[in-house]
Amino acid sequence: TPHRLELRTAGTIFIEVPVFALLQQVLAATVTVFEQEHFQGKCLEFTSECCNIQECGLDNIRSIRVESGAWVGFEHHDFQGQQFILERGEYPHWDAYSGSLSYHVERLMSLRPIYCSHQSSRMIIFEKENFLGRSVEICDDYPSLQAMGWMMPEVGSMHVQCGAFVCYQYPGYRGQQYIMECERHSGDYQHCRTWGSHCQTPQIQSIRRIQH
Amino acid sequence: TPHRLELRTAGTIFIEVPVFALLQQVLAATVTVFEQEHFQGKCLEFTSECCNIQECGLDNIRSIRVESGAWVGFEHHDFQGQQFILERGEYPHWDAYSGSLSYHVERLMSLRPIYCSHQSSRMIIFEKENFLGRSVEICDDYPSLQAMGWMMPEVGSMHVQCGAFVCYQYPGYRGQQYIMECERHSGDYQHCRTWGSHCQTPQIQSIRRIQH
Repeated sequence: TPHRLELRTAGTIFIEVPVFALLQQVLAATVTVFEQEHFQGKCLEFTSECCNIQECGLDNIRSIRVESGAWVGFEHHDFQGQQFILERGEYPHWDAYSGSLSYHVERLMSLRPIYCSHQSSRMIIFEKENFLGRSVEICDDYPSLQAMGWMMPEVGSMHVQCGAFVCYQYPGYRGQQYIMECERHSGDYQHCRTWGSHCQTPQIQSIRRIQH
Repeated sequence: TPHRLELRTAGTIFIEVPVFALLQQVLAATVTVFEQEHFQGKCLEFTSECCNIQECGLDNIRSIRVESGAWVGFEHHDFQGQQFILERGEYPHWDAYSGSLSYHVERLMSLRPIYCSHQSSRMIIFEKENFLGRSVEICDDYPSLQAMGWMMPEVGSMHVQCGAFVCYQYPGYRGQQYIMECERHSGDYQHCRTWGSHCQTPQIQSIRRIQH
């Protein structure tokens, strides 16, 4: 249950602290995207989501500079297809942010800030779909789930209690990437089909928190 | 200065704890490598380094199962070329452990365990070569060095005080990978040429610890 922040004005207003933190982050997030590799060609700056970069006048995004916040890019319009986690720094070409060579399509058509509170992140992973079977609580970064005692290379379902995580297909934060946020789907990811429109396997072998 | 573990026997023996931990890990490390993708074809199990897998009877390594410990694979014989960090879990094909699409050569010809003590990891990164310029101490995982206040996308030199780290060319643990160990080169990496024979740029934008 979130803490309450009491603001005394004429009367008394109550603000949910997570919402407050959320607003701060979304306002702070800034990214510059470029039509060509190595930060060349037409560029645009975004401080909020863009569901279709072609409608903004770019035919594709080929390099990215994240000024602040954490972002997720998508292969297709309207936040569909492969997901690309983007944190503060420079990405001079597609393979700087792509996780998967096996599915190599150089497209980034939409992007949005990642919503995660500044509080500690916490999620529960389940052995089977629909939050069934063995479960483990996660509140740290795990480059290898098997090394921390999760014996199978798959995860059946997940519930994000607070914050945001990135799940990866392979150990060491490699392969397909999936962003999991408590502020979306109520933090419920009951089947691998809900992890992303590009997800074809429940294989997850490393998980880390998104922190600003 | 390392703690001393006192063992009472007929007399008194002193063992440096880091050495002790080191031995434990190297003994514990086990990896199975396969000549074909998806854990098919001829396979070999290693519990210590292999400087040339062709001399062991495999023409290449195309899938890997890390049973325990953390390992680093190399593109060429004798621990040369691109480095591939391998932690406990399953890697069914080359792009599951490769970080770089821009330099796509599907070869893994040698591998060795990563030597890192179970103590906390700590390193200092420097702005310039030969441990000059501004410096920052690192003892955690940083998916974005810029987000933690390191304003440039490069690192000039590094000194690993204890443990082992992986440095990555791009944020979010992507791009070229470089293993940095306190037990090698006395933990000194004074120039990007010393990070690996494949290293062509001082660009480093994310760093994480290797933990068993």
